[in-house]
Amino acid sequence: MSIPNPTAPIAITMGDATGIGPEIIAMAFLRCPELVRNCFVWGDVATMRRALRLVTSSEMALPVAQIGAVPEFAGVPTNCLAVLQAGPALPDLPWGRVNAQAGEFAGLCVVGAAEAAISGDIAAMVTAPLHKEALHAAGAPYDRFPGHTEMLQSVAARRMGKAPVDVPVRMMLANDELRTVLVSIHVSLRQALDAVHFDNVLETLLITHHSLGKLLGRPPRIAVAGLNPHAGEGGLFGREELDVIAPALQVARAKGCQVSGPWAPDTVFMRARKQAGQEAEFDVVVAMYHDQGLIPVKYFGVEKGVNVTLGLPLVRTSPDHGTAFDIAGTGAADPSSLIEAIRMARLLLTS
Amino acid sequence: MSIPNPTAPIAITMGDATGIGPEIIAMAFLRCPELVRNCFVWGDVATMRRALRLVTSSEMALPVAQIGAVPEFAGVPTNCLAVLQAGPALPDLPWGRVNAQAGEFAGLCVVGAAEAAISGDIAAMVTAPLHKEALHAAGAPYDRFPGHTEMLQSVAARRMGKAPVDVPVRMMLANDELRTVLVSIHVSLRQALDAVHFDNVLETLLITHHSLGKLLGRPPRIAVAGLNPHAGEGGLFGREELDVIAPALQVARAKGCQVSGPWAPDTVFMRARKQAGQEAEFDVVVAMYHDQGLIPVKYFGVEKGVNVTLGLPLVRTSPDHGTAFDIAGTGAADPSSLIEAIRMARLLLTS
Repeated sequence: MSIPNPTAPIAITMGDATGIGPEIIAMAFLRCPELVRNCFVWGDVATMRRALRLVTSSEMALPVAQIGAVPEFAGVPTNCLAVLQAGPALPDLPWGRVNAQAGEFAGLCVVGAAEAAISGDIAAMVTAPLHKEALHAAGAPYDRFPGHTEMLQSVAARRMGKAPVDVPVRMMLANDELRTVLVSIHVSLRQALDAVHFDNVLETLLITHHSLGKLLGRPPRIAVAGLNPHAGEGGLFGREELDVIAPALQVARAKGCQVSGPWAPDTVFMRARKQAGQEAEFDVVVAMYHDQGLIPVKYFGVEKGVNVTLGLPLVRTSPDHGTAFDIAGTGAADPSSLIEAIRMARLLLTS
Repeated sequence: MSIPNPTAPIAITMGDATGIGPEIIAMAFLRCPELVRNCFVWGDVATMRRALRLVTSSEMALPVAQIGAVPEFAGVPTNCLAVLQAGPALPDLPWGRVNAQAGEFAGLCVVGAAEAAISGDIAAMVTAPLHKEALHAAGAPYDRFPGHTEMLQSVAARRMGKAPVDVPVRMMLANDELRTVLVSIHVSLRQALDAVHFDNVLETLLITHHSLGKLLGRPPRIAVAGLNPHAGEGGLFGREELDVIAPALQVARAKGCQVSGPWAPDTVFMRARKQAGQEAEFDVVVAMYHDQGLIPVKYFGVEKGVNVTLGLPLVRTSPDHGTAFDIAGTGAADPSSLIEAIRMARLLLTS
């Protein structure tokens, strides 16, 4: 991970305007003024004003200051919420509904902030949740991205003059007890099985080794989960461990990675769990598919989890929950995971 | 669940003679004399003597009393460990190695105890772990069973004059915080995907409703996990939720089940987790495959988990760990999960 300018501001992308993104950002700014001192929102001014009205009785509690470009942030008073207007102003959209306009705007924010992060204009980006169906409804170019990660990969690849396939990224989920890196993310479980092939597993191990190693300042102790129950139990319940995972692990080890496994999926996360006063066996678990890694990370409560994208030429974290359309616009949303994501971005910049 | 004779003794099957089964049984008898007052071992006398020598310095701490049939247990003094010799005496087998003889003997114990449980000669069976490769090495008839559950299903079917397919069973994993029932168990993840079809999901819901309902004394609030990340997010990441799970759920609801879902797999277990002073949202989560349910159950430590087979005409519980060949014969094994399994069997008999 190259960090061109750690003293530059951090951008928080607004996410889907009809989801809980705007209101949890507003809450984070109101509740944690010290934490967000160097942060601004990459989003829509009117939507952020609406969110602030939801969560505070006084409009004067946190005035919104519109900025047109990143350098203008330096001139914004610290008692204001700075919003970089990412595109044409949004109308007053209904809360919690899939909306193509909201999807497109959310995409604009992510792409804009990613460009700024790669340029070094911002130090890191923290992304509030977007809604994948809205992104889909927005049409090209956003409908080809299942989520944030793929969009960031595409931007990075274009900027680096590479094909997206040559900027491999992986999602790491982390809380205070557990870190997990996923071989695949937003695909059906059936497609995730097909994604468990030698190149993909090896690439995940190497990205984990290099990117997490930079954060920890030492080579991480990587545990690799199997794919099948009991890690296949010697080939009785599936052969991916023997045919794919173990060979990838051997090559990774030859390249200097500290890897072990493939371990039984149902106990490896417990073994990697950091508990008070105890050293965990591993620094991170490489999980073979989305839910294998996310179920244990979220078991303590979603508000504790943070998503870190490994492998990109920028620092990006995000809360590990979605747009929560069912409660959007009610002010009932919990900003804890977003606050954790901001804290984690700061941590990555100083480590 | 029909419980013909709750005052009859409980049999603990010895499991694989070269694994940790014998020594954790010996520890449970030594440490929890009250809990095991009405229990005997369905196993091998010499193997149990060897296990006792491992875990106690004095052979006189717990004398072994061999019995030839269940009724003889009534005459065994309470300060003895009663062992029903399940077959020809085993030789002194090496610890922690796949052994066809140990596999066959373990199978004999399970089948014998199951027959006795269905007859009402014993009130319940608690099964120590067997090793599936040893079972496989034992050849017919044991090599066709991937684990305990399928073996018990086969015995029950034969006794009831039905085909095994007409005695559907499901595995429930439970600890003090979470219960989960699995749609499929010991098959590769690829085969588990194919097992997520309408009949199988509906059958799992109905077995959970009826069997857990008997244990709780009321209809359980069943949460159904999706199969794909985010439960498919409206069909974007897989269609099983729309095409299979939701329709099965509707039929189950029409039949009186209290079911909800399909929920995002990565948060439904957290929502079902019982925490001190809080009511969980659900009594049980129906998981679509083995690791989806077992990862959260085991996340707090394997020693807390108990396996309950739902749908059989007998009561059967077991620890949720394996034979641990790597530490078998060292006395380092932890009997906690076996002790929990005995406690759970007693609980099922009195509820």
